Amino acid sequence: MGSFVETLRGIVGPAGVLEGDALQARLAGKPQQQARWLVRPADTAEVSQVLAACHAAGVAVVPQGGLTGLVHATDTRPDELILSLERMQQLSVDTTQRVLVAQAGVLLESAQAAAVAAGLMVPVDLGARGSATLGGMVATNAGGNSVIRYGMMRENLRGLEVVLADGTVLDMTNQLVKNNSGYDLKHLFIGSEGTLGVVTRVVLRLCEPPAGRGTALLALPGFDAVAPLLRRLDQALDGTLSAFEVMWQDFYRTVTTPPALTRPPLAHDHPLYVLVECGTADGTERLCEILAAAMEEGTVADATIAQSEREAKALWAMRDDVAQLRRSGPLVAYDISLRLADTGPYIEDLRGAIGRRWPGARVWAFGHLGDGNVHVAVHVPQLDAAGRSELDGLVYTPLQALRGAVSAEHGIGLEKKAWLAISRTPAEFALMRTLKQSLDPRGVLNPGRVFDTPLI
Amino acid sequence: MGSFVETLRGIVGPAGVLEGDALQARLAGKPQQQARWLVRPADTAEVSQVLAACHAAGVAVVPQGGLTGLVHATDTRPDELILSLERMQQLSVDTTQRVLVAQAGVLLESAQAAAVAAGLMVPVDLGARGSATLGGMVATNAGGNSVIRYGMMRENLRGLEVVLADGTVLDMTNQLVKNNSGYDLKHLFIGSEGTLGVVTRVVLRLCEPPAGRGTALLALPGFDAVAPLLRRLDQALDGTLSAFEVMWQDFYRTVTTPPALTRPPLAHDHPLYVLVECGTADGTERLCEILAAAMEEGTVADATIAQSEREAKALWAMRDDVAQLRRSGPLVAYDISLRLADTGPYIEDLRGAIGRRWPGARVWAFGHLGDGNVHVAVHVPQLDAAGRSELDGLVYTPLQALRGAVSAEHGIGLEKKAWLAISRTPAEFALMRTLKQSLDPRGVLNPGRVFDTPLI
Repeated sequence: MGSFVETLRGIVGPAGVLEGDALQARLAGKPQQQARWLVRPADTAEVSQVLAACHAAGVAVVPQGGLTGLVHATDTRPDELILSLERMQQLSVDTTQRVLVAQAGVLLESAQAAAVAAGLMVPVDLGARGSATLGGMVATNAGGNSVIRYGMMRENLRGLEVVLADGTVLDMTNQLVKNNSGYDLKHLFIGSEGTLGVVTRVVLRLCEPPAGRGTALLALPGFDAVAPLLRRLDQALDGTLSAFEVMWQDFYRTVTTPPALTRPPLAHDHPLYVLVECGTADGTERLCEILAAAMEEGTVADATIAQSEREAKALWAMRDDVAQLRRSGPLVAYDISLRLADTGPYIEDLRGAIGRRWPGARVWAFGHLGDGNVHVAVHVPQLDAAGRSELDGLVYTPLQALRGAVSAEHGIGLEKKAWLAISRTPAEFALMRTLKQSLDPRGVLNPGRVFDTPLI
Repeated sequence: MGSFVETLRGIVGPAGVLEGDALQARLAGKPQQQARWLVRPADTAEVSQVLAACHAAGVAVVPQGGLTGLVHATDTRPDELILSLERMQQLSVDTTQRVLVAQAGVLLESAQAAAVAAGLMVPVDLGARGSATLGGMVATNAGGNSVIRYGMMRENLRGLEVVLADGTVLDMTNQLVKNNSGYDLKHLFIGSEGTLGVVTRVVLRLCEPPAGRGTALLALPGFDAVAPLLRRLDQALDGTLSAFEVMWQDFYRTVTTPPALTRPPLAHDHPLYVLVECGTADGTERLCEILAAAMEEGTVADATIAQSEREAKALWAMRDDVAQLRRSGPLVAYDISLRLADTGPYIEDLRGAIGRRWPGARVWAFGHLGDGNVHVAVHVPQLDAAGRSELDGLVYTPLQALRGAVSAEHGIGLEKKAWLAISRTPAEFALMRTLKQSLDPRGVLNPGRVFDTPLI
């Protein structure tokens, strides 16, 4: 393979290829990264040439962004090549067209800062903004905190540039809102976790930032109140509802009990809590009115409305203090999606099933319920691999009958591959394989992630 | 082919197949419909069996909805089979999940009525609502009047059921907001104009209807005012801006001059007019405030705000009175998309080029400029086929350098096939052909529409 490395060096320059000791030094402390080469192209042309070389040589390529994924889609094996987009950092903002055009290695945080500097806003936000790259967020169709109002990455992408497995550059960097000129090919690549092409450039729409914000924490009398409350808020807020984060009691207690930093803004004895946010100038006043009506109606048992930015931040800090769940020991975290009406009963059934199997287990439920997205975190003392698989089964198996999703926003990667058939039919698998075979016939792009493909 | 027809009758029953005189009677007066058979399946299973039979026999299939398309995607040749979805009319609404699940033959108007009856709203609307079917609207990724707020069909679809060319049924009837469980396959079929699969069932999200509405007609001092005005409205209206319809002076004069029914609400001498609408409880008051500021700033020269539902309807009736353009004689209508900054100069250049070539020509420009979508209508006296092609060239050729779209919302069909390369690269064409070949290897589905494919 000496000549293969020479080929790579010829494309990206000697500093653009790491192998041997230099690579091991970079990957130290990351046991899931076992690659043979790491290549850092500087532009799309270099990505194209690297992919063409790998395609010709039959070398498997794992595209990597900020490594913030949670499903092991970018773990590498010892025979694989890491394609890092870290040098691809160009970025520009157009305030008339209201788009941001960026190379794939740009961090979400950098994109957000550039948009804000131009008086606009990137409509996608998530906790890992300081390390997640735009390319990775496209490949995983990232969701995050404001999906309910602005959608996921898919809904915010105007265009893409993608390099196919054989090095073909697909320029789909459309900036237009409406374009029905032929197939909209970019959707093939959004959320396909690097298995169909490498994202090299993104065109994101930018939005006008809300003129104000209202934030409140509500206590609910039970799960039956969730759907009517969500509808009432949506009706009264004219589409400005930007967060509807539900916390079951167990979660709320843990994040508001010492050593957690937050003291409980509302009493501990309600079955459910909802953190609500809207982005509109008179948000606080509007939430006041709506919540008064909801309390009268009985869908809200108690509420506190943030009276300042500081109070709003404190409510979010409580919701985001997920680290408290680890106080009991290691966690298994799930990211599932269900129909709203099914979600309450599903969580109760799951809690019962886990409690019967492991009486010492703990189960926390919370999530972006405005989007149907539930995060379930489970601690089972001394859980071994067989137990983990059994736990996965308890979480995932009921989703089949409910037509739920084994992944709402994190993707499949390697972690959920065995469970993908819960959410997808054999005919869908066949079409996914057809697409993979058509776009990457030698199977060099992120092979074996999402679903199994024939060996190279 | 006798046994082929027997096969069809065996699937859909004798009343489900038309041929010969019965078919000619039905197609009478439609010279663009020359099919040999028309088949009307009652459900997905029948669609599947019909497609399998056509696939086996190498018969070309043209799926048809309400025949409201404008680009001849559903014209048929004498050897083709029309697959009409007209018998597939099931419909249900779920007010908790806020989705509508419907078979493909359901009319937009019926879907809208069912949503309204349930206190909700279909977020897509267009003039042909009384004949357009949901299946056809998916196949063409229909746009319409409220794209600026709610998006096109694509953004409003949660799930689809599609039958592939060989009869394989793909159940992708997802109802969830977030689902990153494998490739999101439905996007392949949205906007692919029936060339990759037949849509049999749709899952549409439903929205809460706005609590109120504000409507205004504005006169602008020039095209440079369009972008800042759009941004000001968007900023101040918190995402509730639901229409931003620009009319150039020529269009405005024609639709407000007798025999047009509407008298001019604002003087005739402004270069541009914008019909603005927002969907929010205090819309009229908010528009008043915003327009006062915009007039002070100079982006609006004059304005009238509708004070009643009747006045709002009258403004829309004026905008929609496109029939007035035909007073001069036959029209050629274009549906293009450009970056906002390019649109004003493009229209001026086009007007100049057409005027130089045909001094007697008339050019009207108007459109959904909040979405970058311009409709250009041109009347050239005694235009023959060669002239039409020359006119097409004047309209489309400049779009290549501007990276505009030859179709914003109408699609490609047969009409724009020759011009698709203006908007798409050879690499994109190659991938479109790869997809067509992979999903419909015998080329039986709507062959030759959008782009040329190998013969069956």
